[in-house]
Amino acid sequence: MKFCSNCGATVELRIPPGDSLPRHVCATCGSIHYVNPKIVVGAIPEWEDRILLCRRAIEPRHGFWTLPAGFMENDETTAQAAARETLEEACARIEVGEIFTLINVPHISQVHIVYRARLIDLDFAPGEESLEVGLFAEHEIPWNEIAFRSIALTLQHYFDDRRRGTFRFRTSDLAPPPPVGTA
Amino acid sequence: MKFCSNCGATVELRIPPGDSLPRHVCATCGSIHYVNPKIVVGAIPEWEDRILLCRRAIEPRHGFWTLPAGFMENDETTAQAAARETLEEACARIEVGEIFTLINVPHISQVHIVYRARLIDLDFAPGEESLEVGLFAEHEIPWNEIAFRSIALTLQHYFDDRRRGTFRFRTSDLAPPPPVGTA
Repeated sequence: MKFCSNCGATVELRIPPGDSLPRHVCATCGSIHYVNPKIVVGAIPEWEDRILLCRRAIEPRHGFWTLPAGFMENDETTAQAAARETLEEACARIEVGEIFTLINVPHISQVHIVYRARLIDLDFAPGEESLEVGLFAEHEIPWNEIAFRSIALTLQHYFDDRRRGTFRFRTSDLAPPPPVGTA
Repeated sequence: MKFCSNCGATVELRIPPGDSLPRHVCATCGSIHYVNPKIVVGAIPEWEDRILLCRRAIEPRHGFWTLPAGFMENDETTAQAAARETLEEACARIEVGEIFTLINVPHISQVHIVYRARLIDLDFAPGEESLEVGLFAEHEIPWNEIAFRSIALTLQHYFDDRRRGTFRFRTSDLAPPPPVGTA
C-alpha cells in the first residue's frame, strides 16, 4: 500500500496513537488503513460414499485437486459462502451441514473453514475456475495431487471420522511449509 | 474507496472479467481492490464459577460490558488473537481452550469467534480500551448492559452448557437488529 484510498495522498507506515502495530496512515486526511486476515470457506459435498473434488484451472496450484472453496465475500455468512463457492466452482447445489474444520494459516494471514455438505443432485460440471469436477470414494482420492495442505488435512479428518462413525469439529494451525528441496 | 492504493489514480466500481461482483478497479495500473469480511476473536476467561468481563472505554457501545474481543490481526492464529485481546483489554493472561461460538454478522461483514479460556491468575486491570474489568458469577451478569448481541448470545450458550455440564461448539447467524423505536 502506497497511496491513501480515501484521498490519494501517499501513506506512511507508523503506529497510530493507542495502537501497538504499524499501520498505513495518511498524513493528509488522517485515514488509518487496516489490513486483516481473510477467510476462505469451503465444503465437502457428499454423495453416498463419495465426495466432490474440483481440479483447479487457475493459479495457485493449477491442475491440482481441491474441495470447492474460496474467499468469503462481504454481506454473506460462512454457510452461504460455502454454497456459493460450490456453485461457482462445480456448478453444484448443496445442502450445507455443520462446520467440520477451522484451520489457521497465519503465515499467509488466512483462516480456512470447511463445512460438511450434502450434494442435492448429480447435475454438476466444471465452473470457470475448474478444469474438471468429479466424485471420489476414499480409495480414489488423489492424495499426491491435493492443492492445499488445509484441504488434505480436512480430508484426512473427514475419512478418519467417517470410519469411526462420528464427526467432530476440528481446529488446527498450519506452520509455513518447509522450503522446497529440504529433506 | 476512491483512489488506488497502489498507484494513486482514481478507482472505478466494476465487475472484473471472470468475476461476478463489482470491485474497486484501477483503470491506470489494473489493480483490483477486494474488500472481505473481518474476523473478531474473543475469549470467555473463567476463574472458578466466575468469568471476566470488560466495560468498554471506547465506541461503539462505550460504557457497556463485553468479553475481551477484537479484530484479528495478520500473522496470528485465532487462539493467539483471543489471548492478545484479553491481554490488551484486561491486562490478563489466559490459557486458551476450545472454540465455543462462531457467529456470522453478515450485515456488518464480520465473523465473531469466541474461545473458552482459563484465567491464569487474578492479576488483571483495565487496559486502554476498558473502563473497568471484573469477575462475574452467572447471577451477576449485567444482561441489560451487554455491548453486543453476539456476546450476549455466547454468554447465554455458555451458562446453558455449564448448567448442563457439557460444552459444545455453537454456530449461528445474526440478522440486522430491528430499527430503534419499533415495538
